[in-house]
This record gives sequence, structure tokens and C-alpha cells, in this order.
Amino acid sequence: MSLEEPVIAIVGSGAVGSYYGGRLAQHGHDVHFLFRSDYQMVRRDGLRVKSPDGDFAIAADALRAYDRPEAMPKADLVLIALKATANHVYQPLIRPMIKDDTILLTVQNGLGNERQLAALFGTERVMGGLAFVCLNRMPDGVILHLDHGLLQIGEFIGGATPRLRRVAEMFNLSGVQCQPIDNLSYGRWEKLVWNIPFNGLGAVMDTPTDILIGTEAGLTLVTGLMAEVIEAAAAAGGIHFPPDMIERKINHTKSMGAYRTSMQIDRQEGRELEIEAILGEPLRAADSAGVRTPSLRMLYHLARLAKDSDRNKPRSR
Amino acid sequence: MSLEEPVIAIVGSGAVGSYYGGRLAQHGHDVHFLFRSDYQMVRRDGLRVKSPDGDFAIAADALRAYDRPEAMPKADLVLIALKATANHVYQPLIRPMIKDDTILLTVQNGLGNERQLAALFGTERVMGGLAFVCLNRMPDGVILHLDHGLLQIGEFIGGATPRLRRVAEMFNLSGVQCQPIDNLSYGRWEKLVWNIPFNGLGAVMDTPTDILIGTEAGLTLVTGLMAEVIEAAAAAGGIHFPPDMIERKINHTKSMGAYRTSMQIDRQEGRELEIEAILGEPLRAADSAGVRTPSLRMLYHLARLAKDSDRNKPRSR
Repeated sequence: MSLEEPVIAIVGSGAVGSYYGGRLAQHGHDVHFLFRSDYQMVRRDGLRVKSPDGDFAIAADALRAYDRPEAMPKADLVLIALKATANHVYQPLIRPMIKDDTILLTVQNGLGNERQLAALFGTERVMGGLAFVCLNRMPDGVILHLDHGLLQIGEFIGGATPRLRRVAEMFNLSGVQCQPIDNLSYGRWEKLVWNIPFNGLGAVMDTPTDILIGTEAGLTLVTGLMAEVIEAAAAAGGIHFPPDMIERKINHTKSMGAYRTSMQIDRQEGRELEIEAILGEPLRAADSAGVRTPSLRMLYHLARLAKDSDRNKPRSR
Repeated sequence: MSLEEPVIAIVGSGAVGSYYGGRLAQHGHDVHFLFRSDYQMVRRDGLRVKSPDGDFAIAADALRAYDRPEAMPKADLVLIALKATANHVYQPLIRPMIKDDTILLTVQNGLGNERQLAALFGTERVMGGLAFVCLNRMPDGVILHLDHGLLQIGEFIGGATPRLRRVAEMFNLSGVQCQPIDNLSYGRWEKLVWNIPFNGLGAVMDTPTDILIGTEAGLTLVTGLMAEVIEAAAAAGGIHFPPDMIERKINHTKSMGAYRTSMQIDRQEGRELEIEAILGEPLRAADSAGVRTPSLRMLYHLARLAKDSDRNKPRSR
């Protein structure tokens, strides 16, 4: 990657892609955004972000917005922030931007994104990121940055390489706290310890986090699922978490109040659920490693049933 | 039980109790009905049944309706059709009607009702019944008998005794098809093979039977639960079903169309769910027998979570 004047492409310019890409553009980088449904709106209104770290906007005539990847320049870094339900369009969306040394950095949810990118475009290109950020997109298109913003990034294969550090430095100099990490897999599984119970049960039961940890039945389900994910991480990823991991995650969740996870909101809004990335891939990883995860398996099928069931009934939510 | 002029008490005169008791009264038996919330209505309107086997009504002045058990005569036969969520009031409701040779026949759902009655009133009194009947209560109080009506009855302990045959004969002579069965436990567990997946998933997911068997995810969940219940029945009840039991149950369900189970309807209407009788008791029986039933366990906790979660949110259904 050319460090001085990197060409950066954002694929999947929802709230996450627009926020991180916007910060890079705000700090003088050459950022090109691929939009889909929002293209007409940003052509008219530009990109607007309200944030505790400082509001900013990129005017419509200064924003490098595209509605098709073929019109975009070859990129040094492609930041992928698609919903994981759109991974079947990796090839047509990303291929046009790739040159010899293009780095692909996926900040998508769940498991399997790096592997799928590696299979299509080559293992050596791929990095993964964990975005600890709370973002909402308002009806008028303004992106509301609610809290946090830490981005942890790691190589798909290998530890903290020089190029990983360069990418991290670029984010840090652009107002995004970014940590290069040695073991991306550890981070991915740690996120799953939380995401599997709270996104899964949240969507299936339409229940926010405070009810899930504040009732005996909910807490039994949550901690049972966490224990299975921790076992799967050990067998499938060789990852060993500290013994008080579950307690830590529950305590952290207490501080969040009545939080609705993205999958619960997606279901309420009638959008696609990231079932395979958050539930299906970890289940298959556990199965391949020979670990029994009966609660995760049932949750996966319940989420699929919820999706099929919603399709068959009139919207009442 | 005095066969010639038995005094019959109906405890829990909802649709099931009113229908079976009404048939007995229609055929000249001395039937006394204990009502709760419907008492004022039946005092005014009597009991009205619409049925493919013949409509009938018992006028208000001919109906022996009571609002408290102390006012009722001692009974030869007490038919118990309470919701299983009301079993904690067995003692005050039933005790006043009991004399030396009173028979208690529970036609309630799920597991554990006979055992609880036996613990309170003596094992030798207790019979259980499986009511294969479709009944709806209309807003105006009319009971709509939709289909079927077979009542299978068995001794809690022991096979087809002479008194069991006498009770069965009384029903058969009163327009209710009734079979005495040798093994009540077999019948209870067979009903659970169906009730656990369809009532449990129906309530938790708010999904009717056609979606549960018509989607890959639903069918996976249903057949997985059935397999666990069949294993639990073998270990906990010594019951061995034919090898094509699951296939039979699925085929039977296909003929039912988009059927909403009682637990799904109870949840939609904001009523109490029979979680312990249909899910909790079978789970505890499996646990005691040392059988692993992880899907049943999860379903049990999900149903409890659904109950707690509904209590915490505004009614939106």
C-alpha cells in the first residue's frame, strides 16, 4: 500500500462505512465511496455526521460517491462494511478495485468474512477489523455517532505486520482510535461470545439486553450459550479466554441498559438478519471441531424459522 | 362410585369441562359445575353448545352452577378441567367435594397432574384422561365444538379396572366417545411428542403448525424435539413407541392446516401459559432419568423468557 497518497475505497457505505470513510476523508485522504440505495441522497446532501468527537460533513460536490464499482479507481485499501448477508456480491463489487497490492479490510460482523474474501481474492490481501462503535442513521440521512469508535484490526493470517501498523496509524491520525492486534481470531470469537446470545436471542425473542440478563430464564439461556461459544472457540480457534469471561460480559451488558442489538432491530424493521455470519458460521466451526453446541444449533434454527415465519405473516410490528 | 345415580362435579368449567359435563347433564346425569369468571354469565344464559354431534343447551334455571366449592355436594366423580397453571388451588377447590370413594379424573394438559392430585388426595382416587377435542369459546359464551371428542381415560396406577370401564361406559352412553386404556402414561407421553414442539415453538415463536412443518428450519426443530421426547419417554416412562412415530405425527399435522395451538393462542391473548405441565415436568422427568434433552431444556427456558418478556412490554399483539 502506498502510504503517502493511498487510494481508499469504501464498499458498503452504510453507517459504519460512511463513518470510518468519512473520518479518513475529513483528514485529507483520497476516499471513494460505493453507495447503493443511498446514492441519490448523498449526491444531493453529501455526508453528514454528528459525533461527540466532533461533527463533520463532506459537501455533495466534494464527496467521491459512486453507484457502481466499475467507475471507481483501483484502490490501495478497500474497507468492506457490507452487511454480511450481502457477501454473495463480493466478487462483482470488489473485483473492479483490485490491483496487485490492494489490501482488503473487512469490518463486517461475525465469522467467515475474511475466509470468503481470501478464497476469492487471495489470502495475503485480507485483514479483518472489529468495530466497537455505536452508530445510528437518522431518517434524514444524518449519521449519528453515539459512542465509542475503537477499531481493532488484524491480519487474517499472521501477526502485527508493518503494513497492519501503517493502516492503524492512518486511522489514528484521522481521529479513529485504532489498535493493531496480533490475533484477529481471538477478537472475532470474543465478539461472538457476546453477539451470539444477545443478537440471536434478541432477534428470535424480540427482547432487549436488560430483559435477557434481568430474568432467570434469560440469564440461563445467555450464560449457557456463552459457555458453548467459549468451548467452540477453544476447539475451533485454539483460543483460551480468561475464566471470568462470562461474568465480565454480563457485567459489561448491565452497563448498557435496555439495548436493542442490530439483529433485533433488523428484524423489527423487516431487514435481512445476519444469521449465517453470527450464528451459522460459528456453529459450523464448532461442528467441524467436533464440539457439541446444542443451544447454538437450536438458536440458529430458531433464527432461520423467525426469518421464514416473518415472510409468511403480515407485518404487525 | 355409585353407578346408578352418580353425583358428578366439574372443576374448571372452561370449554373442555363445560362440554364434557354438559354432555353428561344432557343425558340425565346429576352434574354440578364449578365456575369462576363465567359464573354470572351462565347464571343468566345457561350453557350453550354448538356441535356437529348435535347442538344442546342447559337453561340457566336447570344448570347446577356454583361459584364456590363449599356450596357443592360431595361427588362420586370429580372431572378436573382446570388449566394446569391453576394446580396450586387443587386443595381448596377439590377438598370440599371429596368423600371416601370419590374418583378424581383429570383431563388437564401435560405431565404431573395425576401425581399432584395423588399426593394431595391419595393415589387410589386418581384417573387421567386425554381429551382429543377441538373446542372454542365464543365471545357470547357459546361453546363451539369443532371436531373430534374422543376421551381416553386410564387409571393413574394400574390397568383397565372395572370402575374405569364403568366411567367410560357412562361417557359413551352420554354421546362422548370414551376408551378405557391400560397405560395412561403411554398416552400422556404420546401427546407430549406432539404438544412439546407445537405448543412450545408455537408460543415462543408465535408460529402456527403449517409454518413449523413447512419450513426446513421449523421441521428440523420439530423433529429434533420429538426425538428427544421419545427418548425421554423410554427412559422416564419405560415407553417404547413405534419407529415411525415422528413420521406419523408430522403426517397428522399436515392434515391440520394452519393450526394455532392452545399455548400460542394463550400467549396472543395475554393468558397464562401451561409451561410447567407441557415443558417443565417432562424436562424434569428426563433429567431424573438421566436423559439429555438439550432442545427441550432450551425451549422450556425460552417459554419462560417469553412469559417474562411479555410482562415487561406493552401489549402490541
